[in-house]
Amino acid sequence: MTQPFAPHGEITVSTRGQGLYEITSDVAARLPKRDGVLTLFVRHTSCSLLIQENADPDVQRDLLAWLQRFVPPATDPSFTYLRHTLEGPDDMPAHIKASVLPVSLSIPVLRGRMTLGTWQGIYLFEHRDAPHFRRIAAQFVSSTAD
Amino acid sequence: MTQPFAPHGEITVSTRGQGLYEITSDVAARLPKRDGVLTLFVRHTSCSLLIQENADPDVQRDLLAWLQRFVPPATDPSFTYLRHTLEGPDDMPAHIKASVLPVSLSIPVLRGRMTLGTWQGIYLFEHRDAPHFRRIAAQFVSSTAD
Amino acid sequence: MTQPFAPHGEITVSTRGQGLYEITSDVAARLPKRDGVLTLFVRHTSCSLLIQENADPDVQRDLLAWLQRFVPPATDPSFTYLRHTLEGPDDMPAHIKASVLPVSLSIPVLRGRMTLGTWQGIYLFEHRDAPHFRRIAAQFVSSTAD
Repeated sequence: MTQPFAPHGEITVSTRGQGLYEITSDVAARLPKRDGVLTLFVRHTSCSLLIQENADPDVQRDLLAWLQRFVPPATDPSFTYLRHTLEGPDDMPAHIKASVLPVSLSIPVLRGRMTLGTWQGIYLFEHRDAPHFRRIAAQFVSSTAD
Repeated sequence: MTQPFAPHGEITVSTRGQGLYEITSDVAARLPKRDGVLTLFVRHTSCSLLIQENADPDVQRDLLAWLQRFVPPATDPSFTYLRHTLEGPDDMPAHIKASVLPVSLSIPVLRGRMTLGTWQGIYLFEHRDAPHFRRIAAQFVSSTAD
Repeated sequence: MTQPFAPHGEITVSTRGQGLYEITSDVAARLPKRDGVLTLFVRHTSCSLLIQENADPDVQRDLLAWLQRFVPPATDPSFTYLRHTLEGPDDMPAHIKASVLPVSLSIPVLRGRMTLGTWQGIYLFEHRDAPHFRRIAAQFVSSTAD
């Protein structure tokens, strides 16, 4: 996990059910000391990337609680029209959540540091119940001649 | 459609009503054989880009069914407050959908191949009922010296 | 506000409550006369970036009206489960809105002009009620040798 993106790399996350898994420091540790843009891209269709507040953990808890009500499990009475249900009641809702939340993020980098605001953290947002091994492609593009 | 992005290009899609139109192979065929990041940007405010599962077509069907319930036509009783209704009952809902789903995607590219996951396809998501001609700007930025 | 991104810069917006604040011309005026990709990244977790129609102001009005109903204030009866409520009834809903709408945008640039469609404008979407000073990081990455 400590080798720099040069300029490509991968961040992996082992998830243990729905929720937010912070990857900010994993990403920050691997940036080259240059100016440019970091692209993060999650290679799955049932989880997301997200930038949100990393100060009060209640923000993450409330966000998850809201998302689970916004897109409930497929067993919810509102979801009788769903057909893709063989992979479990959390699967099609996960695809829906992954459509509404980001699959890719583009973050400016100055002298090797992301221009994140004071309270911004980067998260892998898992939408499935079972543990999953998630892969995030990272690519750094320089905005200056070396 | 077969000329490489060098580094700019355009993908066009003729749509026939609301739904997902896959463009993965059109995009893949035009990538230069280099490392970098591909940016896709849809030049409209009533359709979207989306990366979602391209294995079971029921996922796309369920996603469209969900989106049509999430943001119903302007004739829905819940929408009495809308003012932008002159362009038809599908127009303002299309703007809302286009605000919630992606207008741009950033995809890492390694030796000319996108780092898509096994089940990920790239789609133009049309939110209007009538046929439309949609234009997607594509720009490749190299992450290595040539 | 008139110095070019070279290649980094910042757009700032002083907001006066919830709504859309157009920044298209501020951004356009600062692009270098080259080909590349512009990344915009908002350094906050309670406002968003958005590309939407800038022709009929009713589109922006309707979009705000819809968003305020989609994610109502924390005092709404549907929100009894929220815990992050100390910063006011508009704060946790602002975090939710900022999760669903874009934090970053990637826009292709040709000879110094963004490839925006005819009706596309770029907005800072403020989700808080009180005035805020918002910072958007901008980074231009060239796709051609100079």
